[in-house]
Amino acid sequence: MPDFSVLEAFPTPSDTPFVIEHVAEEFTSLCPKTGHPDFGEVVVRFCPRPGREGGVCVELKSLKMYFQSFRNKGIFYEGVTNAIRDDLVKLMQPVWLRVETHWRGRGGIRSVITADHGNVPR
Amino acid sequence: MPDFSVLEAFPTPSDTPFVIEHVAEEFTSLCPKTGHPDFGEVVVRFCPRPGREGGVCVELKSLKMYFQSFRNKGIFYEGVTNAIRDDLVKLMQPVWLRVETHWRGRGGIRSVITADHGNVPR
Amino acid sequence: MPDFSVLEAFPTPSDTPFVIEHVAEEFTSLCPKTGHPDFGEVVVRFCPRPGREGGVCVELKSLKMYFQSFRNKGIFYEGVTNAIRDDLVKLMQPVWLRVETHWRGRGGIRSVITADHGNVPR
Amino acid sequence: MPDFSVLEAFPTPSDTPFVIEHVAEEFTSLCPKTGHPDFGEVVVRFCPRPGREGGVCVELKSLKMYFQSFRNKGIFYEGVTNAIRDDLVKLMQPVWLRVETHWRGRGGIRSVITADHGNVPR
Amino acid sequence: MPDFSVLEAFPTPSDTPFVIEHVAEEFTSLCPKTGHPDFGEVVVRFCPRPGREGGVCVELKSLKMYFQSFRNKGIFYEGVTNAIRDDLVKLMQPVWLRVETHWRGRGGIRSVITADHGNVPR
Amino acid sequence: MPDFSVLEAFPTPSDTPFVIEHVAEEFTSLCPKTGHPDFGEVVVRFCPRPGREGGVCVELKSLKMYFQSFRNKGIFYEGVTNAIRDDLVKLMQPVWLRVETHWRGRGGIRSVITADHGNVPR
Amino acid sequence: MPDFSVLEAFPTPSDTPFVIEHVAEEFTSLCPKTGHPDFGEVVVRFCPRPGREGGVCVELKSLKMYFQSFRNKGIFYEGVTNAIRDDLVKLMQPVWLRVETHWRGRGGIRSVITADHGNVPR
Amino acid sequence: MPDFSVLEAFPTPSDTPFVIEHVAEEFTSLCPKTGHPDFGEVVVRFCPRPGREGGVCVELKSLKMYFQSFRNKGIFYEGVTNAIRDDLVKLMQPVWLRVETHWRGRGGIRSVITADHGNVPR
Amino acid sequence: MPDFSVLEAFPTPSDTPFVIEHVAEEFTSLCPKTGHPDFGEVVVRFCPRPGREGGVCVELKSLKMYFQSFRNKGIFYEGVTNAIRDDLVKLMQPVWLRVETHWRGRGGIRSVITADHGNVPR
Amino acid sequence: MPDFSVLEAFPTPSDTPFVIEHVAEEFTSLCPKTGHPDFGEVVVRFCPRPGREGGVCVELKSLKMYFQSFRNKGIFYEGVTNAIRDDLVKLMQPVWLRVETHWRGRGGIRSVITADHGNVPR
Repeated sequence: MPDFSVLEAFPTPSDTPFVIEHVAEEFTSLCPKTGHPDFGEVVVRFCPRPGREGGVCVELKSLKMYFQSFRNKGIFYEGVTNAIRDDLVKLMQPVWLRVETHWRGRGGIRSVITADHGNVPR
Repeated sequence: MPDFSVLEAFPTPSDTPFVIEHVAEEFTSLCPKTGHPDFGEVVVRFCPRPGREGGVCVELKSLKMYFQSFRNKGIFYEGVTNAIRDDLVKLMQPVWLRVETHWRGRGGIRSVITADHGNVPR
Repeated sequence: MPDFSVLEAFPTPSDTPFVIEHVAEEFTSLCPKTGHPDFGEVVVRFCPRPGREGGVCVELKSLKMYFQSFRNKGIFYEGVTNAIRDDLVKLMQPVWLRVETHWRGRGGIRSVITADHGNVPR
Repeated sequence: MPDFSVLEAFPTPSDTPFVIEHVAEEFTSLCPKTGHPDFGEVVVRFCPRPGREGGVCVELKSLKMYFQSFRNKGIFYEGVTNAIRDDLVKLMQPVWLRVETHWRGRGGIRSVITADHGNVPR
Repeated sequence: MPDFSVLEAFPTPSDTPFVIEHVAEEFTSLCPKTGHPDFGEVVVRFCPRPGREGGVCVELKSLKMYFQSFRNKGIFYEGVTNAIRDDLVKLMQPVWLRVETHWRGRGGIRSVITADHGNVPR
Repeated sequence: MPDFSVLEAFPTPSDTPFVIEHVAEEFTSLCPKTGHPDFGEVVVRFCPRPGREGGVCVELKSLKMYFQSFRNKGIFYEGVTNAIRDDLVKLMQPVWLRVETHWRGRGGIRSVITADHGNVPR
Repeated sequence: MPDFSVLEAFPTPSDTPFVIEHVAEEFTSLCPKTGHPDFGEVVVRFCPRPGREGGVCVELKSLKMYFQSFRNKGIFYEGVTNAIRDDLVKLMQPVWLRVETHWRGRGGIRSVITADHGNVPR
Repeated sequence: MPDFSVLEAFPTPSDTPFVIEHVAEEFTSLCPKTGHPDFGEVVVRFCPRPGREGGVCVELKSLKMYFQSFRNKGIFYEGVTNAIRDDLVKLMQPVWLRVETHWRGRGGIRSVITADHGNVPR
Repeated sequence: MPDFSVLEAFPTPSDTPFVIEHVAEEFTSLCPKTGHPDFGEVVVRFCPRPGREGGVCVELKSLKMYFQSFRNKGIFYEGVTNAIRDDLVKLMQPVWLRVETHWRGRGGIRSVITADHGNVPR
Repeated sequence: MPDFSVLEAFPTPSDTPFVIEHVAEEFTSLCPKTGHPDFGEVVVRFCPRPGREGGVCVELKSLKMYFQSFRNKGIFYEGVTNAIRDDLVKLMQPVWLRVETHWRGRGGIRSVITADHGNVPR
């Protein structure tokens, strides 16, 4: 449902493994049941495939636009998390990737959903 | 003693393992000895069985109602912790599950009780 | 609605003005509309009348019992705040008194209600 | 531009002056220039007119719906702040009222806008 | 009841008004009702009379010994606060003095007691 | 020395007094003695003249560009603070304005410089 | 030296392994050299033997009384830590147990002493 | 006793009143009784006389050297505070000046000493 | 692009393995796309080769100058991180080395880039 | 260079392995290049050899005096760290020992140096 087409990537600028983490502190979508907004933080951490193997990294501004495309979608916590994981894996086919979504809570319960791809270290 | 019947579940929305954490910051029950209220925080973390194997996840609002059913029960810290663990395991039969209860303290001593099901990672 | 009868007082142990503040971090009552629990913190600050004029101070354990008597009452934020102010003024007739209730929030909005008696300094 | 019609009020439950503060931590609107979302926190603090004079207080859930009506509006920081101040004054005609909006920042600059009605104490 | 005799003073080393604050983070006494220990922090702030007028300041190590003399005394919060205020005023006759005692709480309620001598600024 | 020409303003969107605060957390300039970079935070707070009197407010993006124009200037703490105050007063002629610069420190001493225009409240 | 006789235990309420942590924030004893009071925090964490094997857990109120029995004992940091470890092992014969004592410091040095029984995980 | 001769000043770079604050987080001297080191933080805040009246400001590096000259001096808290106040007043004859010394504590008591010159605002 | 030539090293002062961490809190470079400044923090952690094997450690002041040489370079986050890693490895050939760059964020997303050399422990 | 002779030890009071940590928050020495003072925190953590094997533990007050003996020494960060490690190993021959020195920073870079003896766990 979110807009995969806005995602862009650039070639990994190194052949030595390294790790990239992006923390989007201002994420919002809509609860599909009540229509009320959900607010949270999205953490994406990944090890891109090396440049010489055709590896790519998600471009930061396009990632921002991608997250904004959730703004008026009705989608559950788990749906958001799995969608981001699947779209970024499709874009980059990274060595490994983890998506964490931290939700500010409804009715006194706050939640964290974690979805992995590949063999996430530690 | 708490109300198992209010718990509801929905099918796991993915076949790729992921982890869900719910933190209920406003938990209260009664001390069975003195009748005075206990206040604490309940953390539930689990990996649901995948959807294609019939796995389910606890529904958030029903979890809230379940926690509220402890409000006027006389029950020890250990009883609360084990009851939540056992009820959620019965509901979901997850791959693994951990329940932590953090109590704000009586007489200058605060306590944390942890109960696991299955092989909780790290 | 709360239980005024549990409140007890002792004579002010000094004729020199002084100030007492009690912070109850574990207050809970029920929303009269939804029946769901509200959680908050109650701050009571006052200057008792001096002992030689028959001044009294609320006894700490009775204050705790009084706060517990709200546990299963359906009552709005404003009602809680005004009830505590009025009951403590009735009990002590202090020189001045302030009641603040800090509520942990519903639907992303947290609230603070403040009610005064007499000329609260600063 | 925001939806004034969703705001509701209830009669002030006291004739003794008191103060109400609501903090909405999850406010979002759109920048009218770029279309990008702005995120912030809105603090509303006011002293309602007393009940015997026909004073009213804004109802909490309707305030939440009102804040949500900004979600897809293109409006500057100053516009948000003044609109909230003007709408709440129109609804309640309080003794005094202050609106603060705290914005999380764009380009390394975060901002706070404050608008008052009447004689705000301190 | 505490041991006034251990308090010592030295001449104020200046004729220009200045302010001294001592914060004792490790204060303990006993509850006279239950015999259980109370733990708290004591803050003493004062402006000594100037040296040329025979003003004196409490010596730091003797203040520590004085606070230790409460260790096994059964005494209420208010009693501790007023005793410290009265003893230090007797020792120094300062221009002004404030004593604050911050208690870590019993039964979920923590307390602060404040007692002044003279015209404490702000 | 900084670039006044990049500053832009827009008409004050209200005739009711209000207050605007901008906090630029990422300010840098150069020490004119050593050539080493200084890092700090700049806080600008002001009350614009009302719109009907031709009052204007500094535009946020132009303020950012203005702050960036200090990047490679050799200028003391006091020079930065006074330059910002003078340039913003020249641009807006506000009712009042305060500039605070908070410097991260050199040799174990951190500094705050404050410069006002008009009658800054509190 | 502390009072072992006040310790009480209750049967472990489960046959599934779980973990209990008690944090006593208000511990005090005396330095055997100087007679001055030491203040600290005691953390006890253990896995009780299961109920069907006759396992027991220390009762919370008796633990509090036990800690209070150190109040006027002259005993070194290491002595306190080893005494608590040995007494609780004697009482419960737990699967494993860790005692940490965190001391607020003397002469600018604060200390932590840790003593284990059995195979403490992680 | 400290080394006044290292202090240097530069002409106040403005005729409009402004305020300068320097916070030296790494101050140390010796206790004249025990010879043990004292550690603290020194805060100096002042309003220099305007440049056209010959006003001067203390130079930052010379202030650092001045503070270092206390390193091996045996001097009480009050002595440090008054010496800094007197030396800086002698150097700058500022409109007003405040010196605060925050000491990390001995025997569980930490202290703050404040000395003013002129009419310190607020 | 940064200035490798300013880096200096000194012989490792020990033959026993040890670890050095330097945290530069005030790093800035330029975004190569927009020309706007980026601000961040650079953490370098490494185990130098032992002195008897000709091991060297980067000299602290030269490291500072090296970081300053990025000030007006247009370079991406990944470029900064890899350049620092490669230059320090070239200089020291350490047993292992990790570089982390923490960026304060643009458009609500903050990033951390990590690049390793050798077998970084944990 | 520091004064090894002030260090004293006492027999390990237990034959069961345990761990001792001392944190000295107020450490200072001199930079050998510039003569300016360095300030930091020293953390020492070790497992003493058991008492029955003649194991000893460093005495706390003598450790304090030992740290003070660095006060006017010109010595680099690495020198301080290695000297403490070597002297404490010589004194106690512990099972394992770790020394960490945390330095408050010069020129915007703060540093941590870690030196181990034996097989430090985790």
